[in-house]
Amino acid sequence: MTAYSDLAAHYGKISALSNAMGILHWDNAAMMPKGAADTRAESMAVLAVLQHEMATDARLGEMLLAAEAEDGLGDWERANIREIRRLWTVETALPPELVAASSKAVSACEMRWRTARQESDFVGLLPFLAEVLRLQREVGAAKGQKLGLGAYDALLNDYEPGGRAEKIDVLFDDLAGFLPGFLEEALAAQGKRPADPALEGPFAVETQRSLGLRFMAALGYDFERGRLDVSTHPFCGGADNDVRITTRYDEADFTSSLMGVLHETGHALYEQGRPAGYMNQPVGHARGMSVHESQSLLIEMQACRSKEFIAFAGPIMKEAFGGEGPAWTSDALWRRYTRVERGFIRVDADEVTYPAHVILRYRLERAMIAGDLALADLPGAWNDGMKELLGVTPPNDRLGCLQDIHWPSGGWGYFPTYTLGAMTAAQLFDAATKADPDILPAIGRGDFSPLVAWLRANVHGQGSLYETDELLTRATGRPLDAGVFKAHLKRRYLGA
Amino acid sequence: MTAYSDLAAHYGKISALSNAMGILHWDNAAMMPKGAADTRAESMAVLAVLQHEMATDARLGEMLLAAEAEDGLGDWERANIREIRRLWTVETALPPELVAASSKAVSACEMRWRTARQESDFVGLLPFLAEVLRLQREVGAAKGQKLGLGAYDALLNDYEPGGRAEKIDVLFDDLAGFLPGFLEEALAAQGKRPADPALEGPFAVETQRSLGLRFMAALGYDFERGRLDVSTHPFCGGADNDVRITTRYDEADFTSSLMGVLHETGHALYEQGRPAGYMNQPVGHARGMSVHESQSLLIEMQACRSKEFIAFAGPIMKEAFGGEGPAWTSDALWRRYTRVERGFIRVDADEVTYPAHVILRYRLERAMIAGDLALADLPGAWNDGMKELLGVTPPNDRLGCLQDIHWPSGGWGYFPTYTLGAMTAAQLFDAATKADPDILPAIGRGDFSPLVAWLRANVHGQGSLYETDELLTRATGRPLDAGVFKAHLKRRYLGA
Repeated sequence: MTAYSDLAAHYGKISALSNAMGILHWDNAAMMPKGAADTRAESMAVLAVLQHEMATDARLGEMLLAAEAEDGLGDWERANIREIRRLWTVETALPPELVAASSKAVSACEMRWRTARQESDFVGLLPFLAEVLRLQREVGAAKGQKLGLGAYDALLNDYEPGGRAEKIDVLFDDLAGFLPGFLEEALAAQGKRPADPALEGPFAVETQRSLGLRFMAALGYDFERGRLDVSTHPFCGGADNDVRITTRYDEADFTSSLMGVLHETGHALYEQGRPAGYMNQPVGHARGMSVHESQSLLIEMQACRSKEFIAFAGPIMKEAFGGEGPAWTSDALWRRYTRVERGFIRVDADEVTYPAHVILRYRLERAMIAGDLALADLPGAWNDGMKELLGVTPPNDRLGCLQDIHWPSGGWGYFPTYTLGAMTAAQLFDAATKADPDILPAIGRGDFSPLVAWLRANVHGQGSLYETDELLTRATGRPLDAGVFKAHLKRRYLGA
Repeated sequence: MTAYSDLAAHYGKISALSNAMGILHWDNAAMMPKGAADTRAESMAVLAVLQHEMATDARLGEMLLAAEAEDGLGDWERANIREIRRLWTVETALPPELVAASSKAVSACEMRWRTARQESDFVGLLPFLAEVLRLQREVGAAKGQKLGLGAYDALLNDYEPGGRAEKIDVLFDDLAGFLPGFLEEALAAQGKRPADPALEGPFAVETQRSLGLRFMAALGYDFERGRLDVSTHPFCGGADNDVRITTRYDEADFTSSLMGVLHETGHALYEQGRPAGYMNQPVGHARGMSVHESQSLLIEMQACRSKEFIAFAGPIMKEAFGGEGPAWTSDALWRRYTRVERGFIRVDADEVTYPAHVILRYRLERAMIAGDLALADLPGAWNDGMKELLGVTPPNDRLGCLQDIHWPSGGWGYFPTYTLGAMTAAQLFDAATKADPDILPAIGRGDFSPLVAWLRANVHGQGSLYETDELLTRATGRPLDAGVFKAHLKRRYLGA
């Protein structure tokens, strides 16, 4: 056995545990009876400890050094060593007491948050969230010291390897300067459209599910390596070669579940298309959260909210539900799927307003990690930011700074990946449709194979071979900028 | 922390892994897409190794010694130490090379068996099965040395702790002397009944499932701690407080799936009724496979094939399927559910012929482990035994000694627990109905609560506090004998 294959074999065992936990996590959300919660939590905790022990095992450090010194390795092997080194650095950065304290603070804060949000009680949450923030700053500092990064960049690195706040600032400032004015214009243009009549339900769950399965098949989702089920919060999860997505059905409105299925299918296509020979190795993993989100948003926002796709899918929806009347024309369905609205809640936001929600959260969490914004001042800063970016002021903190679980659950540094993903999606889709002009016409025929072939070659099949910037530069000719995303919004919402 | 609580905490972690594996095993059978098979096998293998490391950890041996020396412990704690010692002795009995060789031989043999059975090719399987047998004899010898037992008893001990072949011989010889003559009589009595018309299908799967759920609820199955799903081979599995059963549906015949659901519900009631405070400790586990099988057979054979239950359930079945005519009377349904037939296949056998299949296998596997029967002579010995016990001779080995996976998969010593379970079920049900004369009338009203209350108190809630003999003696006044089972058969099939 070479040093490298030794290292890869050890990592394969870590992945075997991740795969087990992925299925248990899916089961938890989609299948588990509620009386099993304590038993499951105990199993997950024991598995997490065992995996952490494997990932920080001193022998892994030695294997890494030996593999790094080995000659004659190929690009994939060297990139795999680089990725394992990256993970090793992060996994071994924290003293066990800090891991334990952080996990304890997060549990307490998450639990308190559920009632605090309900009751719009920011003051009640404050001491719990302050403890989480204090420990996130410590975690960021400890990881940052090992990585040679500031605290925020070190937290961001967990979700967006190689990501840097100073680059995000440039991208987001560009977008923040554009969005408020653009939103005015888009709403004005929308106001001139005729109002569409409502889609009359109820829409049978079985029909919604069949339609979802039909479109998943059209997208090239491999049902021999995945499933579609139901959970309260839709997600894409599971394991290597076992990529499971979920949705939830609303009998009064099929449109959002159906688009949600397409969104998760975008994530799933990435997972199913990762390089087969490196499925259980870090170099074969998805490149990071922004690229992951780009794949769901490319499918949902770029491909499936296009006029071309709705022209194909609209008649199928109409026939499936036996719909009749002007609400069911492809034009009316397309208008419904591209409606823009100012709102308070991120998860309900549309393509135009979503980035404003994200930029606000990014700026606030960066300031809090830097110590430039006191937690007590968060509600005011939130409301000021909403006014500035979206032109609305939340009437209370439930509809304001208490709406998301990310901060209570210790997910600081995650938010920017949503909008980086949206921008990346636009830039990739633009490059794809230029490289293969048949991609959009094919989508209009319900044929996603030209698009997926391009994604397989340029994104999915690359795994983590390259850093994000290089992946994007190879695929689109340049690193990420806001230009294509802005052009996309103008074209779709202003017809410009 | 006391030495005992230290020990229990360590064992809790082993159970946390068992629980994770239980859910993954269920998922494998009920949910997993087939392309995930390799990924899942890898996860299961890594978890099995980690669990074996925990179960043979030298610190566990020290904790055991310390706990055994501790004063002031209660009965449950002392019994828990006894059970952990029992498991420790077995887990540490085998050298790792023997474990690895055995696991490898079983994998190869199982795979070969699938085609050998299909092609009725005993000669092709012979070298593979010989290797499994050779290693089973080594395993039995190694465990036996630690336990002070012969090889067969040591293998039996994995499924039936405390079980001894010399006791089983007495019970099975008794039954073997009774069955062939009784079978003649039962078939003769059945021949005098009028022939019942066929139940006309198809029977919608959704209706079958609803009926199953309805009867599970009547039995007191707790849906907050379990589920009903579909798998090729029905089973009861899952985890502590998460007891999942499966069935398979046949649109042409609802009767066998429905009775299968009741059988698995019997297993599930045991699992759900284990002592809550010791769920994840050996003392809180089911007592052994024969007691486990007794709980499924008590529900299926004793309670749910009774005239009382069919009188209650028959009209519900009839209404659910919109059945009409003489095939749907409770009497006709009861006759269908108590039909006796000679056959070649164990899993298709009825209550009367099943023990003959089991006694045959028990005698043969005992002789092979003892070295008294050469593997090459198995087909002939099988056919002789079938003739003697059941009065039929299989036309080929596919319908003979190749039908079961137990031997190829290394499950030597398992077979007798089926019939020990049937006898135990009869003895427990007899004691229960004598202790509470309302049990059978209540079942006739669809009310299982008096029966389940007795089982909870006398079996489920006792976990592994007592050895099997003592459990049965406390519940029924004496150790297991064949008398009640024989009396039950005579009453049901001869009206005697």
